[in-house]
Amino acid sequence: MQTLIEPLIARCRPGWSLPGEFYSDEEIYRHDLARVWRTGWLFAGHACEIPKAGDFFTLEVDTDSIIVARGDRGEIHALHNVCRHRGSTICHEPAGHATRLVCPYHQWTYGLDGRLLGCRGMPDDLDKAQFGLIRIHAREVGGLIFISLAQTPSSFEPAFETLSPLLKPQGFHRAKVAKAVDYLVNANWKLVWENNRECYHCNVNHPQYIKANFDHYNADDTTPRIREAIHTVVARSEQKWAEAHLAPTHKQTGMTVFPDAENHIWFSANRTPLVEGWVSESMDGKQVAPLMGDYQDADVGTLRIRTLPNLWNHSSCDHGVSTRLLPAGPQRTAIRVYWLVEEKAVEGRDYDLAKLMPFWQLTSEQDWQICERQQKGVNSSAYLPGPYSTFKEYNVDSFVRWYLKMLKFETSSAGAMVA
Amino acid sequence: MQTLIEPLIARCRPGWSLPGEFYSDEEIYRHDLARVWRTGWLFAGHACEIPKAGDFFTLEVDTDSIIVARGDRGEIHALHNVCRHRGSTICHEPAGHATRLVCPYHQWTYGLDGRLLGCRGMPDDLDKAQFGLIRIHAREVGGLIFISLAQTPSSFEPAFETLSPLLKPQGFHRAKVAKAVDYLVNANWKLVWENNRECYHCNVNHPQYIKANFDHYNADDTTPRIREAIHTVVARSEQKWAEAHLAPTHKQTGMTVFPDAENHIWFSANRTPLVEGWVSESMDGKQVAPLMGDYQDADVGTLRIRTLPNLWNHSSCDHGVSTRLLPAGPQRTAIRVYWLVEEKAVEGRDYDLAKLMPFWQLTSEQDWQICERQQKGVNSSAYLPGPYSTFKEYNVDSFVRWYLKMLKFETSSAGAMVA
Amino acid sequence: MQTLIEPLIARCRPGWSLPGEFYSDEEIYRHDLARVWRTGWLFAGHACEIPKAGDFFTLEVDTDSIIVARGDRGEIHALHNVCRHRGSTICHEPAGHATRLVCPYHQWTYGLDGRLLGCRGMPDDLDKAQFGLIRIHAREVGGLIFISLAQTPSSFEPAFETLSPLLKPQGFHRAKVAKAVDYLVNANWKLVWENNRECYHCNVNHPQYIKANFDHYNADDTTPRIREAIHTVVARSEQKWAEAHLAPTHKQTGMTVFPDAENHIWFSANRTPLVEGWVSESMDGKQVAPLMGDYQDADVGTLRIRTLPNLWNHSSCDHGVSTRLLPAGPQRTAIRVYWLVEEKAVEGRDYDLAKLMPFWQLTSEQDWQICERQQKGVNSSAYLPGPYSTFKEYNVDSFVRWYLKMLKFETSSAGAMVA
Repeated sequence: MQTLIEPLIARCRPGWSLPGEFYSDEEIYRHDLARVWRTGWLFAGHACEIPKAGDFFTLEVDTDSIIVARGDRGEIHALHNVCRHRGSTICHEPAGHATRLVCPYHQWTYGLDGRLLGCRGMPDDLDKAQFGLIRIHAREVGGLIFISLAQTPSSFEPAFETLSPLLKPQGFHRAKVAKAVDYLVNANWKLVWENNRECYHCNVNHPQYIKANFDHYNADDTTPRIREAIHTVVARSEQKWAEAHLAPTHKQTGMTVFPDAENHIWFSANRTPLVEGWVSESMDGKQVAPLMGDYQDADVGTLRIRTLPNLWNHSSCDHGVSTRLLPAGPQRTAIRVYWLVEEKAVEGRDYDLAKLMPFWQLTSEQDWQICERQQKGVNSSAYLPGPYSTFKEYNVDSFVRWYLKMLKFETSSAGAMVA
Repeated sequence: MQTLIEPLIARCRPGWSLPGEFYSDEEIYRHDLARVWRTGWLFAGHACEIPKAGDFFTLEVDTDSIIVARGDRGEIHALHNVCRHRGSTICHEPAGHATRLVCPYHQWTYGLDGRLLGCRGMPDDLDKAQFGLIRIHAREVGGLIFISLAQTPSSFEPAFETLSPLLKPQGFHRAKVAKAVDYLVNANWKLVWENNRECYHCNVNHPQYIKANFDHYNADDTTPRIREAIHTVVARSEQKWAEAHLAPTHKQTGMTVFPDAENHIWFSANRTPLVEGWVSESMDGKQVAPLMGDYQDADVGTLRIRTLPNLWNHSSCDHGVSTRLLPAGPQRTAIRVYWLVEEKAVEGRDYDLAKLMPFWQLTSEQDWQICERQQKGVNSSAYLPGPYSTFKEYNVDSFVRWYLKMLKFETSSAGAMVA
Repeated sequence: MQTLIEPLIARCRPGWSLPGEFYSDEEIYRHDLARVWRTGWLFAGHACEIPKAGDFFTLEVDTDSIIVARGDRGEIHALHNVCRHRGSTICHEPAGHATRLVCPYHQWTYGLDGRLLGCRGMPDDLDKAQFGLIRIHAREVGGLIFISLAQTPSSFEPAFETLSPLLKPQGFHRAKVAKAVDYLVNANWKLVWENNRECYHCNVNHPQYIKANFDHYNADDTTPRIREAIHTVVARSEQKWAEAHLAPTHKQTGMTVFPDAENHIWFSANRTPLVEGWVSESMDGKQVAPLMGDYQDADVGTLRIRTLPNLWNHSSCDHGVSTRLLPAGPQRTAIRVYWLVEEKAVEGRDYDLAKLMPFWQLTSEQDWQICERQQKGVNSSAYLPGPYSTFKEYNVDSFVRWYLKMLKFETSSAGAMVA
């Protein structure tokens, strides 16, 4: 595989977009799966989706089907959804409840931890210990479940330590998914990230988003009036939030810097103020659901989380929106957008989907259209890499550097990543 | 092509399922076409589908369209449906009647035996003898038509001699197709066969089937009560059938052994009893159509036929069900299920599709779902071959050995198979 | 790429159809794109589709999206529809009007000639002159717009000189598109051309066409009665048309010879009579729209134009029909059929689509079905090249020779064609 990839990497120009093959070629896609998706920590879903022992959901990473289940002691297990007998998938629903995982083909029966418990019809001397479901590393932080397909993944601790305190007040572990919408976007997963890593496109494309936020203003276009506005809300927020440990960690216009390719920092979270008069990323800025988690006051700005290669979450005082990417082909990404609210909130009484969803549904769908148009363009024989704006696309550049660094990591025979 | 196939064969472990590439890889599929589908004898359809001279039907083996027609003297011809002028297909209907085969493009005209009879507009010196439709070997046994795409196929005689006497009383040559249903199943053809070659999966998946049959009981789970039950019906059957030459040839629980990889036995048929009180594989075991063929009595058990790589047939006193597989891609199999009844039977008067079809329609569709789930699982990067049950999957193991033997056969330059 | 292509070319037999790989193989298709579609002059559309400055339409050649726009001084520009920033497509409608071409992603703004005019948010030192849209050569002749993706295309002048006088009286530059119908035909583009290059198939397949024309009669089947009929109409036409400079240039039965592979003549036009009593290629031969262009009399026969690799046009006194092919995969061709009438003609008053369209809509769709059937046949493992009729398929043979010559041309590093 080195034959294609290395000359291509050699053609990459710092600060410019990638050559077109990176977004369309089947071999590059296989490479991305091996070097990024099968080595890193992937956001799988929310702990609150599987509150009780025996609850499970499934997800698909390329052609791999994965079961995420809660075990008898409350622990979370991630397992390949592939029977060790003849390979049938075992769970066929997107989510469900089971005390045992029973393959529908020949009823081989596994525990929620993947151990083979029974295989009626096989010789008695079959060593069941050798035939458990293939286990996948799983970790939870602040109600978010991450998995790694690597045999020996990189340590999750740095991410845990960074994300844990910031996530705590949002209370995702005692939330519920009010709604999830699935999209199959005709664009390479990297185009979706590049779109996410800049707000250069926001002014024209995201009329809802720019009303609530400051990060589409950059070094080249933040006027004194805007500087004054953010200074005011930051100052007020800091005063109010100091005692609640909710002080803003990102206090400027422009997007927070992420990722940090050089230090392999693939996770990040920060709290930042919304514009004056907005307490929620809703169409009119008003609260659309009961306060979540530890919040006592609606005026908590917005919590932003992003982890590479597949999650971003924007949370307000009253709801959180998680976006999960999964690779579905060289030019296709399966995206799920989740709206989370406090677990006891009742639809129709405490919140209304028609008010909860539009802000991020519109903003997301605006982005998917952009990504599909870019995919079409980079597929052209006339596409040439172009330069990133140093004012506005510094994070796109960081993303590309992070990605290229991932491609160049050596991988051990076990599939684990070593620098 | 040897580069991929040989290391893969080397990885196969006797008594275990095949590595995943065998079920999904394009190159292996091409290999299967060359070594199995273009060398062996394929079930094409029933003689009764083309009763009169000029009747024809078409079928597709991968990208090859084939015409099977009855000639002027009642003989059966199989021809590639490709005009020798510029390659247009000639017959475009699944079945029809024609005195001549006329290409719709430029009206080159062929006899039912493929000879070029006319080609208006071509120079007079064109040697018509060189431009007949490419002929395919065709044979009939007991009303079933087999074809071989090989230039020099293996002898059909052993199959003819084995199948002919067992098929005779069923009378397929004086039957009619009451109904045929086409399925496009998202599974490699070998998964469909592996499913067919064991009844380990029957207890849970085939509630209809197990009420009528004994073969889902195996060495490890045939109770004394079951042994007694089959002993009783076999004894009674033998007594009754001795004079009618319809004695059971498979008298045990469990499936008859097939195929015989070591002796390259790709065909098999046997008669076996149904459970007490069942005279037909219908929902309630009652007769659902007039007696077929030579039968004078409904109590004749069930006739089972299977030929590799693409037919199985289960017949009762009153109807027969043929299942024909055709390869339609690495992960796709085109399957047709036919229900046959006595040729003079009239729908609505002598039989009712709502009673004739459900037993095998349900059982078949249950299997197609199983196969599609297994395909999905073996496509996972986590799939590993697993062990077959020696009690219950001996025929799956035989099938795999037969298949691997086919792959390793040398093929002559003419495409014919030599051991 | 030479490894597959050269042995395949070596297998081609003069006067016989091509080996099947030419019509289905992905690598050959890539070769066709490089050697034919990216070197030659492609018909893009009609000048009358973009009458005013700022009018544009888009088209797709394989995965390349192209904008054809009319500039401020009335000139025609062809541009790759790919933003030089990060590659997004810019125009997303099949046709429209714009004073500037603004990328919807980050609002980089281009002139109608492709020059980068603005890129808000980029550093001031960005050299805009380096980031214009990639320009494509464009030429107009008689209201037809041709483009070339080659960096240094072959001279358009010979085509201009030949086509210009013949096209002039038809008046396509002051016409309008009354209707356009798009087809996605499941056949390689060469099969579509081969079908176009002979009328051997017309008698049975084109009942409408053969009533109006003489060219389905060939050397082997033109009877004295037909010779007399064409002699009569040619004589009358010549007399009438002499003073109007509309004399027939093709006066025989049979198709005019085209292409001329040896002299690389990829363009051709001629005027030829219709049968007695027909003044238009309409269902009954009667005029179905006002006279076009310079015509003063309905009795002007039919004007025929064809340019390789992607246009043919059949025009009567009252309307013209253009057929544009675009490659959409090894086995798929995107075809648009346009009906043009005089620009001031009003639907419902001066013409009726139900009378204007059927003659060529039926004839075209009859051909698409033929091509799809041939594609299916040449995909068969049993397909073998066959001989062309010297009487009737001389132009198919010429087309194949032209095509093979194109494949063998050397291409310079710039992508331009040198013999």
